[in-house]
Amino acid sequence: MRATKMYAAGDVRVENVPDATIVESTDAVIRITRACICGSDLWPYNLLERGGEPRSMGHEAIGVVEAVGRDVRRIKVGQLVVMPFAYSDGSCEFCHEGLHTSCIHGGFFGVGRVGGAQAEALCVPQADGTLVPLPVGEDDRLMPSLLTLSDVMGTGHHAAVCAAVAPGKSVAVVGDGAVGLCGVLAAKRLGAAQIIVLGRHADRLAIARRFGATDVVSERGDEAVAKVRELTRGFGAHSVLECVGTKDAVTSAVAMARPGGAVGRVGVPHYDAIPLSEPSFFNNITVSGGPAPVRAYIDELLPDVLEGRIEPGLVFDRTVGIGDIPAGYQAMNRRESIKVMVRP
Amino acid sequence: MRATKMYAAGDVRVENVPDATIVESTDAVIRITRACICGSDLWPYNLLERGGEPRSMGHEAIGVVEAVGRDVRRIKVGQLVVMPFAYSDGSCEFCHEGLHTSCIHGGFFGVGRVGGAQAEALCVPQADGTLVPLPVGEDDRLMPSLLTLSDVMGTGHHAAVCAAVAPGKSVAVVGDGAVGLCGVLAAKRLGAAQIIVLGRHADRLAIARRFGATDVVSERGDEAVAKVRELTRGFGAHSVLECVGTKDAVTSAVAMARPGGAVGRVGVPHYDAIPLSEPSFFNNITVSGGPAPVRAYIDELLPDVLEGRIEPGLVFDRTVGIGDIPAGYQAMNRRESIKVMVRP
Repeated sequence: MRATKMYAAGDVRVENVPDATIVESTDAVIRITRACICGSDLWPYNLLERGGEPRSMGHEAIGVVEAVGRDVRRIKVGQLVVMPFAYSDGSCEFCHEGLHTSCIHGGFFGVGRVGGAQAEALCVPQADGTLVPLPVGEDDRLMPSLLTLSDVMGTGHHAAVCAAVAPGKSVAVVGDGAVGLCGVLAAKRLGAAQIIVLGRHADRLAIARRFGATDVVSERGDEAVAKVRELTRGFGAHSVLECVGTKDAVTSAVAMARPGGAVGRVGVPHYDAIPLSEPSFFNNITVSGGPAPVRAYIDELLPDVLEGRIEPGLVFDRTVGIGDIPAGYQAMNRRESIKVMVRP
Repeated sequence: MRATKMYAAGDVRVENVPDATIVESTDAVIRITRACICGSDLWPYNLLERGGEPRSMGHEAIGVVEAVGRDVRRIKVGQLVVMPFAYSDGSCEFCHEGLHTSCIHGGFFGVGRVGGAQAEALCVPQADGTLVPLPVGEDDRLMPSLLTLSDVMGTGHHAAVCAAVAPGKSVAVVGDGAVGLCGVLAAKRLGAAQIIVLGRHADRLAIARRFGATDVVSERGDEAVAKVRELTRGFGAHSVLECVGTKDAVTSAVAMARPGGAVGRVGVPHYDAIPLSEPSFFNNITVSGGPAPVRAYIDELLPDVLEGRIEPGLVFDRTVGIGDIPAGYQAMNRRESIKVMVRP
């Protein structure tokens, strides 16, 4: 089968690899019908040093179950399933608390024996805990939105939940990538009254407006902070969604939060520390977030997608076949594409 | 009248100053019957450089109202009142949200025209919003516990609330000063099942045990983190109360939180940033806290003090007259005293 490997920054290859097979009795093998390239894949695409083992890429997928291990009970061969970006057993105390990304028997795709989803097939560990059957056909028109439940919509929702978005609140979203846009949609869905998106790309901002953004701030750094304050009667936003992961982004996010407000961070951190000395302390700012427990959120978000109340799939603006995955990386990295869907 | 001024590190003096008087129509003047020295006063006591205006010290008090401005409606001359460490109007949107420390017309004692509470009398701004009448006499045996509602008990409670302490949870308290001890008491009051206190002073740990601590960790730094993990089945504590404010303390606090857990920080930060890169991100750790909205918490905590369900006043182990305030600073700074009460 074919799968995507990253050898170094800028060097992504689609190669022939051994077919995905059941290894553990709790595994399932899925034939991937939809996958995508994630904004977080761009970090190694820009930074990965040559020399180590090539990385298996991709952690978002919808697929058809082709085989299950002998201890898999809930998931059946032939089902169409959506796969959260982290696998989890669904039964440990963290899973019971809804924090599936900290599952005691869980982990991430593309690490160790576990392959990546930018491939024709994938062995999914902890299939019963991880996979969620979808009540539609594999080419249903809802595929783009359902695919976002694998990561970006759940991640935007996590940012909003961690930032304590609630009816009537003001929200600022730092980052206009797919996660930031889904953060806008999540904030709208949770009842925010004002949603300020920080960004500069016309195509992305058009989607942000469609998702519910009420204001756009194109400034950066201190000027962006000042603009958000101006738009919020001088106080800052109740909730700030940090959807980038750079030091500048998180610093701005903290600075634009209103006293008593919260920052929900979901951008994988490319910083060591968050400036949280006197100003943020005296303002009682909360910083929360991390990898989204997407598995927990699917239960809540899936009905809204199936019934058309939200359409997060609008973040996809390009579709590639498996052979064109390297071109997809390039398009996203050049900001020529917001998010690329893969049809293997 | 006499009041306490700090000229430089180690140089605290009790001096004659002009009598406290009404300046704004919303002020009240109180004759102070009880005040105290705060752990946070020890920061300037160790660090204040000589040369600036001397600082008016003290922000915790109980007193009798001697005069009120013409716009004061609720507070009456003759009432015994407890004074939160920050003043607030009680009517702005932040006060309505319960975040009185961010009151639009609020502020802190010992800043600008506003004096300090380690004095014979004090002009209290925003008297109606700030002061809370007490239904007891000025020498009631509950005075020590009532006095803690001015700061340390409310601050320990804030740490616990920000760290999301709830029934059945595991809690670690970093710091065995008066605030840390009140944090133990607050955690117990909120139903924590396990309360681990980090400290080394036998007198403080005895009070911690009395307040509800179940475990003591005397190690520091990485060893303390390892010990807390060992006591919590390897996971870390659901809630960590950071009651010190140093870089080491906050770093340890973040590291000893369980995945999905929260750190409530109330130690005035003597650090620029909190290490919150990959480990804490992947563990979805929340950092919250700041100056406690003590005014809001008095409504909740006062009945428990009046009815004897909590006795936070046990943190006082020394009482001084106004002339002996400098000796009180020395005793607290040498850790010969946990917290010093002042009877002016």
